[in-house]
Order: sequence, then C-alpha cells, then structure tokens
Amino acid sequence: MPPMYVNAASHYLPETTIANGYYTKLTGLTDEWIFKRSGIRTRSRAGAEENTNTMSVEAVKAATGRLPYPLGDVDLIVGATYTPYDTIATLAHAVQNHFPFRRARAISVSSACSSFLNALEIVEGYFATNKAHRAVVIASEHNSAYSDDMDKQSGHLWGDGAGAVFLSRERLTDMDLEILDLDTVGLGHIGHGMEAVHLRPNNGGLKMPLGREVFVHAIKYMVSEVERLLTKHGFTGQDIKHLIPHQANSRIISHLAASFGLRNGEMILNIGETGNTGCASTPIALSKNWDRFGRDKLIVLSVFGGGYSGGAMLMKR
Amino acid sequence: MPPMYVNAASHYLPETTIANGYYTKLTGLTDEWIFKRSGIRTRSRAGAEENTNTMSVEAVKAATGRLPYPLGDVDLIVGATYTPYDTIATLAHAVQNHFPFRRARAISVSSACSSFLNALEIVEGYFATNKAHRAVVIASEHNSAYSDDMDKQSGHLWGDGAGAVFLSRERLTDMDLEILDLDTVGLGHIGHGMEAVHLRPNNGGLKMPLGREVFVHAIKYMVSEVERLLTKHGFTGQDIKHLIPHQANSRIISHLAASFGLRNGEMILNIGETGNTGCASTPIALSKNWDRFGRDKLIVLSVFGGGYSGGAMLMKR
Repeated sequence: MPPMYVNAASHYLPETTIANGYYTKLTGLTDEWIFKRSGIRTRSRAGAEENTNTMSVEAVKAATGRLPYPLGDVDLIVGATYTPYDTIATLAHAVQNHFPFRRARAISVSSACSSFLNALEIVEGYFATNKAHRAVVIASEHNSAYSDDMDKQSGHLWGDGAGAVFLSRERLTDMDLEILDLDTVGLGHIGHGMEAVHLRPNNGGLKMPLGREVFVHAIKYMVSEVERLLTKHGFTGQDIKHLIPHQANSRIISHLAASFGLRNGEMILNIGETGNTGCASTPIALSKNWDRFGRDKLIVLSVFGGGYSGGAMLMKR
Repeated sequence: MPPMYVNAASHYLPETTIANGYYTKLTGLTDEWIFKRSGIRTRSRAGAEENTNTMSVEAVKAATGRLPYPLGDVDLIVGATYTPYDTIATLAHAVQNHFPFRRARAISVSSACSSFLNALEIVEGYFATNKAHRAVVIASEHNSAYSDDMDKQSGHLWGDGAGAVFLSRERLTDMDLEILDLDTVGLGHIGHGMEAVHLRPNNGGLKMPLGREVFVHAIKYMVSEVERLLTKHGFTGQDIKHLIPHQANSRIISHLAASFGLRNGEMILNIGETGNTGCASTPIALSKNWDRFGRDKLIVLSVFGGGYSGGAMLMKR
C-alpha cells in the first residue's frame, strides 16, 4: 500500500459512567451475569447536551498541540458513526465547522463497528490520488441515543465516546505509527446480517436480537482477516506485540487471544470501563495506549461490524 | 485523475406520486405557490413496505442484463444516503445481501445531497490503490420517512427514489461515459451549515429552517465548483452539452443555466415530477437520460448538499 502514517490519536469519553447495578434495578440482570457474558462493569454515557457531533469536536480538541503541523493543514475529514446526531450536518461537517479545516473534503461513513477501518481505507484512496495530504478520521458513537436501557438483550452493552486519528503520507516524527497494511471486507451476504444487530432510527433504534450469531461470526472473521494480513506479510501470531480488537465483548477478545497464542498483557482492553463504543472503540483504545507502543513492535487492529463487515490493520512505530 | 468509466446507470422510483393538491389540503400551500418557488408538480413517494435499502436493491436490479460483465465481478459497493433505514445493516450491505457481490468491500456514506460525488470519489480512491476494479455506487433516499407533510417550510419538497451507477477502470463499451474529472469540497465552515437544513433522527427529522440561505449558497458553490473544473480543463460554459444539476429547486437550476449561458434543452430536469430526491437526484437524472448523451459531448454534473458540501464532475461518452 502507499505510505501512510498515524501522527496522533486522541479521544473523548463523557464524564458519566453507568455501573451494572443500574441495569439490575431496571431489568434484573446482575453485575455478575453482565460481567461474565460481556466483560463490562461500567459504560460511558453522554450527557444531555452531548451528541455524536459534540463528542467528535471534543476528540479533535484533545489532539490540539500534539500535532507536528498546524490544524489548518488538514485537507480531508472522514467521520464514522452508526449513531448520527444529524445525517446532513454530519460529524465531519461539525468538525469542519469548529476547526480551521478550510477547503477540506468532508465525508461521513457508516459500516457499523468496522467503519473506523473503512474510513482509514478511504483516506488511503485520497492519498493515492493526491487529493489529500493530511487527514483526520473521527469515529464517534452515541449509542445511548438509540439504545433502550430496558432491553435485556443488549441495552446494557453500549457506551458512548469518540476517537480521532491524524494521518499523513510521509513520516513526520519518531512517534508516528506506520500503517503496514489495511484491508476491509463487506459481509452483507453471510448469516442474518440484515437482522442480527441493527439500528433503524424509525423502527426501534439499536437492537441485537441475534447476539449469538454476531458472536460466532465476529470470532470467525476477526481471526481470519487478521490471519490473512499476517500471512501476506510473513508474520505469525507470535509476531504480534499489541492486539487492539473492537471492544464488543471480552469473550470474543479472549477467543482472539487464544487463536493467536498471545501472552498476557498484549491484548488491549477497555470494554470493562467504557462498554461497546461501536466504531469509536478501536481509536479510543489506540489513543489511550499511544505511549505504550515500542519501536518496531507489531500492532494489529481488528474490527467486525453488524451488517456484516470486517477488517484488519497492521502498524509499527 | 486515473481512468474511470461509468458502464451503466439505473434507477428506481416508487409508483406513487403525490400532487401539490395534497399539501393544499394539509397546509394551505397552493399548486401555483409551490410550483413557482420550487418547480415541483408531483413528488415520488415510497410505499409502506419500502425503504432506503429496498429501493437500493430495486435500482441495482434495474441494471441487470445491461452490464458488460457478470454482477459477480463487482468488488466494491458504495452506498449514499442521509435518510437511512438502518445505519448498521446499511444499503450497501443490503445490496451485497441481495446480489452475488462476494468479497466486495461495502461502505455507506452521507454528505447530504452531495454524497453521490463523494461516493464516486471514494471509488476513484479504491481504483487508484488497486483494491477495486468494478464498483457500484447506489444513492438512495427515503425522505418521506423523516419529513413532515405538515411542515410548511419544506415538507412539500421531498421525493423518494434511488439511482445506481456501475464503474470500471477501463473503457468496456462504446456506451461508457468517461469521467474526465471529479472533485468535492466540504463546506462545514460557511454560513449556518449546522442549522440551515438538517436531519436529526431523534430531534425532529428532516427540516429546512433556513431555506433562503441554502438557496444562496447552492447557487454560489454550484457555479464556482463547475467553473473551477471547466477552467482546469480549458472549457467554458459554451462547451457544456448537458448539465445535470442536483434537483433541489428549479430556480437554482435556472440560475445555473443563466450563469453558463446554456441554451434550452441542455439542462436536465426531473424535479417537476420527482421532487427533491436528495443525493439520488443526479444518478436518477443520469439514468433517465442515459441514451441521450452523444459522443464527445461534455456532460457536467453538479451537486450541493446541506452541512454544507459541494462538488462537480465532467464526463464524455
């Protein structure tokens, strides 16, 4: 792939967190039951005045002063969300409205929880055509705007938050992460992708009636898409220093760790505190662990989304 | 730009149309008043069982048998909508679910009424990185799912429908349209982009409180973005044989015609029958007029979207 570097990662998580006990009162699900099945103890919850757009602005703001170029150099803004505040004045437009990103292209995408990698792949294309040189990708989810706390199937799983990454076509600092490879796949044809997990703004919001099917496909494709990229580059699971998986469920993540023979400490986890923050989960995890990544250590990012979609990315500092 | 060809265009419009008289009964707006300000006599209206995803499938179905390659060759699906039925199982996933587009990437984008050109620009990027060779872009809008017929400001403007185009990196038949150039711009920083026209699924749906501002910016940027591309390629308004503008308002379209000195018959119009079908309006117009475009005649496509965003494209058969 053409050269592509992550110059900075930043994130925003709302102040409020909701503990499992809240759901025990509403639905009878206990802390133990929720934790055992999902790995979640608390989830982040946006405030009454917050939404996908405001959290995107906060995530970008968190990177201010940490970029090796002026914010005004950004010439491409790609937003990602399946929980939009506004589908016309999208989060990409809100970010352009708030920061000096003049004459930047602005797009928002949705491929559910794999949108972050779809957004990066779109940047890859704009870099390849020379239409952009500095890009920001913002993944933001306001799950609680569409989920139902009383829904025993999935109401307790969701968190709110946003993550942002800044990208360039050339290495700018020693802290940059080089993207070695990046690939996505649409899986609209497998299983019950149209029904298993869905967000229909006019028809019931965010639901996951077939959680077991999502679980099975997530494991299958998160493993196979990572393996495909590893093999392509002559790597094995032994070469992985950090695995950043989509934070949907700690049992899925444990399966991944076992599949790749990862030792403890190599799996990056934050679902316990934030819940499933959708397509924002991997950039938030990347941002939270930004200083941990050592030189020349292989970082693997793996996503899976409803609908379905999948994808994987290899990086090195 | 790298070589890029439109191999086929197709569309779907729901059977039902709503005449202006319907709104006269609801809101008191007369046929004459609506027609004078918008150019609209009727607008297409999706049925109770239809939505953005089903209309997308119908638009692709309409191309079946008209492609110079098997449908299974498609390796990239880009959907565009600001009126989603499902933001997780998006229209791109629904199309992949229905047709044999195996191992295709699937993405849906929203940049309001300019999403069709953003989607094509995303395809341009995937072609440039060699990640795709045959693509389908589907723009689908179900405005009536989010608009309010009682809203005197904009309730009477919206239509429902979907358009699709198939794209390749090389010329495949004499009927292909070559894309000479294609550009988009994000305009999140101008005017009251966050408020002027918006679709907030949880906060009032589709509204256009600042229609006058949208009108002024639409004229300004539809003219300037087309002029920029014409100048870049040594063309003037005199070289335009067919202008396909976003079908938002016939007065905007008349301004464009005057700006470019177009003679009668060169402007492609369908707003009178379909209303404003959002980002689907230009691919629907392209599909409806597919056989009219003569060899080596310059076709210009121009879009403007809420938020704001703009873009233009030059094509030749």
